[in-house]
Amino acid sequence: MHPRLTLALTIMEALAIFAYAISGLIEARTRRLDAVGTFLVAMATAFGGGTVRDVLLERRPFYWVEHQGYVIAIFVMSLFAPMLLKMTSRLISERALLVADAVGLGLFSISGTSLALDAQIPWFTAVMLGVLTGVFGGVIRDVLCNEVPLILRDSRPYATCAFAGCWIYVLLDYVSFDTVYSVLIATAFILLARLVTFRFDVRLPH
Amino acid sequence: MHPRLTLALTIMEALAIFAYAISGLIEARTRRLDAVGTFLVAMATAFGGGTVRDVLLERRPFYWVEHQGYVIAIFVMSLFAPMLLKMTSRLISERALLVADAVGLGLFSISGTSLALDAQIPWFTAVMLGVLTGVFGGVIRDVLCNEVPLILRDSRPYATCAFAGCWIYVLLDYVSFDTVYSVLIATAFILLARLVTFRFDVRLPH
Amino acid sequence: MHPRLTLALTIMEALAIFAYAISGLIEARTRRLDAVGTFLVAMATAFGGGTVRDVLLERRPFYWVEHQGYVIAIFVMSLFAPMLLKMTSRLISERALLVADAVGLGLFSISGTSLALDAQIPWFTAVMLGVLTGVFGGVIRDVLCNEVPLILRDSRPYATCAFAGCWIYVLLDYVSFDTVYSVLIATAFILLARLVTFRFDVRLPH
Repeated sequence: MHPRLTLALTIMEALAIFAYAISGLIEARTRRLDAVGTFLVAMATAFGGGTVRDVLLERRPFYWVEHQGYVIAIFVMSLFAPMLLKMTSRLISERALLVADAVGLGLFSISGTSLALDAQIPWFTAVMLGVLTGVFGGVIRDVLCNEVPLILRDSRPYATCAFAGCWIYVLLDYVSFDTVYSVLIATAFILLARLVTFRFDVRLPH
Repeated sequence: MHPRLTLALTIMEALAIFAYAISGLIEARTRRLDAVGTFLVAMATAFGGGTVRDVLLERRPFYWVEHQGYVIAIFVMSLFAPMLLKMTSRLISERALLVADAVGLGLFSISGTSLALDAQIPWFTAVMLGVLTGVFGGVIRDVLCNEVPLILRDSRPYATCAFAGCWIYVLLDYVSFDTVYSVLIATAFILLARLVTFRFDVRLPH
Repeated sequence: MHPRLTLALTIMEALAIFAYAISGLIEARTRRLDAVGTFLVAMATAFGGGTVRDVLLERRPFYWVEHQGYVIAIFVMSLFAPMLLKMTSRLISERALLVADAVGLGLFSISGTSLALDAQIPWFTAVMLGVLTGVFGGVIRDVLCNEVPLILRDSRPYATCAFAGCWIYVLLDYVSFDTVYSVLIATAFILLARLVTFRFDVRLPH
């Protein structure tokens, strides 16, 4: 089971990393940053949440230290960002990006909660670390670009979806449900919750 | 003596946490953030300074990991923030919040300096870590809300009061004065310095 | 060789620290911050990059914990910042500051890459940590002052120069070239690259 879990987590993080890096690229291009600035923002968006989580949980080495390939891939993407985004804007609709970002939110949040539970962090705090892992990359991206972080401004549920999904994972983990299925179910829940609430324009009270 | 110190520090941090969390709630409500955004800002304000201090001093587990109760309390406060703030704005005047925040500033700064001295950090740097513990939650709060941090804009002494109080603590510690009394004296000094300079509108030159 | 390397790195960091602290002072004065605010911004600019690097590489104690003298020197500089900057603006031209900052960029970036390679970090990631060490102090300075970080807005090569220089260091290290000379060559490269591209107003595409 453990190797399967490791594999599942690895694939999850890979998907999430690219979805987040692209959201960083888009934001950086909107600000007309140069290639290096684009790279830094894309890196911070993709790895910011996981790195803060690892600093808090004292996990080493960082994901991006062990997996240099991602760093190089994001670097190349940043060099060709103008071309890449023109191409993707034809191939990939805004809806596709929304889905990719929701996949990232689900995958990162659940991986964060899972690692926190492994580290004997109590439930509520583990859920919070999961949400932090999911949303913090975007917060850094927006702070760097001098904006109030999107998750703080937008009243559409985002962190809230991650929050609910992380609790589902904690519950499944508590009843000793198979880990891989738990990960998939909780991630799917966050993905669906985000897409459904977005589609029907559900707003949180404020 | 040691258990009394531990108890004193625990009570100090508890008071400080709620004072700071409420300042985060108020700022978040001003920005009309939703419940989750409010929760994140309140958490960052309350625990930001102590967490950065603990990362720098390599202390684990974090206060909010060990004391899940605070996290849950702040979560509940965030859910009911609109109601809570309407209620408190009737019950609690702006002056009460100023006092609570000054208590927080004193308590956090002295606890930061005390922990730094325990970790064999030299004096000047220990004072600086104390000030950082006291003010950094508010800095994160303001950065998240896309403002120049209040302590950087406001020419009324704030970090300066903490700075002076931390030196008093270092001196009392140097002459081996009773720790609990030292903590109380230095904290009271910061509290009074903040209130008196605020009352008489003392301004730092700039 | 090792003591010479240590000495070289120490001198490098000393020069870099003052160059960066002054850029922090200038920015803080522009915002008309008081002495304490000025001190915090100058400290963050001078030690921000190195501290984040040390947190990521798990190096302790921090440079500013071990070298309290710098902290005190920057504190005194902050107290007398208005006077100091008036004096320096007569004695030191803007060009001198540009050179000092470029020295800082070179020295910090190469020291960061060097320490990362010592910690067995793979090449590309070591280069990135070097660039981070070089530019992050300035990023924190600008975030605190509520601006889009200069390195993200300015299309003149800055991080790019550091990036190229760090690769030169990695290559010289790979062929086992004398460490001290490698450090000097790579640092000189970054310094010159920055000055030459600035002089001829080279712009990165965006």
